[in-house]
Amino acid sequence: MQKEKPLILITNDDGIAAPGIKALVESVKHLGTIVVLAPDSPQSAMGHAITINKPLRVDRSHIFEDIESYQCSGTPVDCVKLAHDKILPRLPDLVLSGINHGSNSSINVIYSGTMSAAVEAAIEGIPSIGFSLLDYSLDADFEPAKHYITHIVEKVIQYSLPKYVTLNVNIPKLSKEEIKGIKICRQARAKWDEDFDERIDPNGRKYYWLVGKFTLLEESNDTDQAALNDGYVSVVPIKFDMTDYDALDVLKNMNL
Amino acid sequence: MQKEKPLILITNDDGIAAPGIKALVESVKHLGTIVVLAPDSPQSAMGHAITINKPLRVDRSHIFEDIESYQCSGTPVDCVKLAHDKILPRLPDLVLSGINHGSNSSINVIYSGTMSAAVEAAIEGIPSIGFSLLDYSLDADFEPAKHYITHIVEKVIQYSLPKYVTLNVNIPKLSKEEIKGIKICRQARAKWDEDFDERIDPNGRKYYWLVGKFTLLEESNDTDQAALNDGYVSVVPIKFDMTDYDALDVLKNMNL
Repeated sequence: MQKEKPLILITNDDGIAAPGIKALVESVKHLGTIVVLAPDSPQSAMGHAITINKPLRVDRSHIFEDIESYQCSGTPVDCVKLAHDKILPRLPDLVLSGINHGSNSSINVIYSGTMSAAVEAAIEGIPSIGFSLLDYSLDADFEPAKHYITHIVEKVIQYSLPKYVTLNVNIPKLSKEEIKGIKICRQARAKWDEDFDERIDPNGRKYYWLVGKFTLLEESNDTDQAALNDGYVSVVPIKFDMTDYDALDVLKNMNL
Repeated sequence: MQKEKPLILITNDDGIAAPGIKALVESVKHLGTIVVLAPDSPQSAMGHAITINKPLRVDRSHIFEDIESYQCSGTPVDCVKLAHDKILPRLPDLVLSGINHGSNSSINVIYSGTMSAAVEAAIEGIPSIGFSLLDYSLDADFEPAKHYITHIVEKVIQYSLPKYVTLNVNIPKLSKEEIKGIKICRQARAKWDEDFDERIDPNGRKYYWLVGKFTLLEESNDTDQAALNDGYVSVVPIKFDMTDYDALDVLKNMNL
C-alpha cells in the first residue's frame, strides 16, 4: 500500500446510526482519511443484494464529527458501488465493514450484508475486511473489539492483502483480558435450522416469522467457530470465486 | 438417489408469473413429483438475502395446471427455507431454480437470487441446480434451453451430485442446432463496472439508477464465459465454503 495516508471507506449493514459503525470509525480514524457511506436503515441479512428495480438516494450525514459521511437508501453492496463511482475522488485503498452487531462466522458469511459489502470491494480489487462482534445487543461493549480492529487494520495497511481476498473477522463477546489472541482459520461447516413462527393476522390470514437455530456440522479445531469458542478472534480469508474445483473432475465423469 | 419418483422443488427469482419458471416446470415435470414455491414478485439481484425484519406470506397459486404451487412474499432463499420447513412433506430430493431471464455466469452468481436459492438448498445438503438463459427478454425462446435442462436433470437424478455442490447452468441464446453441447467449467473472473445514472426528481432532489457494464477480466478458455461465447451450455460446480484456502498461509505469515 502507498505511503501517503490511505483512503478508507467504511460501511455496514446495521445502518449508519448503529453503535457498531461508530466503534469502527473510532478504531481506525487515526490510520487514514475516512469516508463513511452506509445504509440509512438496517439492512441485516441482505446478502449480496443490489437495488435494480428502484432508484437510490444518497444524502450527506452529520452523524460523525469531522468525518465525511453519507447515508444511502440501498443495500450494503449498493453503498460500496455508489461510494467509488459517485462519492470518492478515487478508488479507496481499503474498505472496512461493520462492526456488525452479531456473528458473521461460518455460514453466516453468505447471508451477511456486512460481509457482502466487503466482498464487493474485493471484486473491485480493493483490500477489505468485515468485522463482527458476537453480541446482538445495541448496547454491546465494543471496547475490546476496537483494540483488535486497530491492530488488524494496521497490519493490513502495512502488508496489504493477497489480491481479491476479503477478511472475515469475528470477535468473541469477552473482555480484552479474556480474549486469547487471533487465529487464522477456515469457515466452519454449519447451517441454520429454520423454524418458522406461524401466526394469524387480525384478518384471519396466516403469516410467518423466520426464526432459526444455528447448527454446527463439524467439530474440527481449525474453523472460525472453534477459534471463537476457544476465546480467540477468528480471521477467515474469503474469496468470491465460488467454483468447487474438487467437483470439476467428478462432473466431467458424469458425461453430461 | 432413490428409485421412487423424486420430489423436486422448483423456485426462481423472476417471480412465479415469469415465463422462465413455466419453461423449467415443463422441462422436468415427467421426471418427478413437482412442487413450485416461488416469489410473488420479481426478486432479481437479491443475492442470498433473507427476510428477518418483516413477516412472510405464502399463498396457494393456481398458475400451473396439475402442479402443486405456492407464491411467497419473500426472497428466493426464503422460498427454499419455507418450502422444506412448512410446505413439503419431507426434504426434497432435488431443488431447481430458474429458468432465469438473463445470464448468471461468472461473477453474476454472487448477485443472483436464482443461484442463491440453489445454493441455499446445497447448504441443506440437497442436490440443486440453477438454470439461466442468456436472454433478458420476457419473450425469450426457452425451447432450446428445455432440451438441455431435461437432459441435465435426468443425469443428476441418475448420478446425483457430490454433496454440498450446486450446478450453475447457463444456456446461450442460440437455436438447438447452434448449441454445440455442454462444457464443465470454472467461474470466469469478471466484474460489473458501475455507472450510476443520475437524475433529478420533481422536487429537485437527486436520485440514481444503478446501471453497469459487465467486464470480463480474463481470456482463459476453461471458464463459463468462454464456453458460452463458443456456443456451449456452461456448467459450473458451485460451493458455499468461501474460505480462500490459498490465502491461509499468506495470512499466517502476516503475524496478525
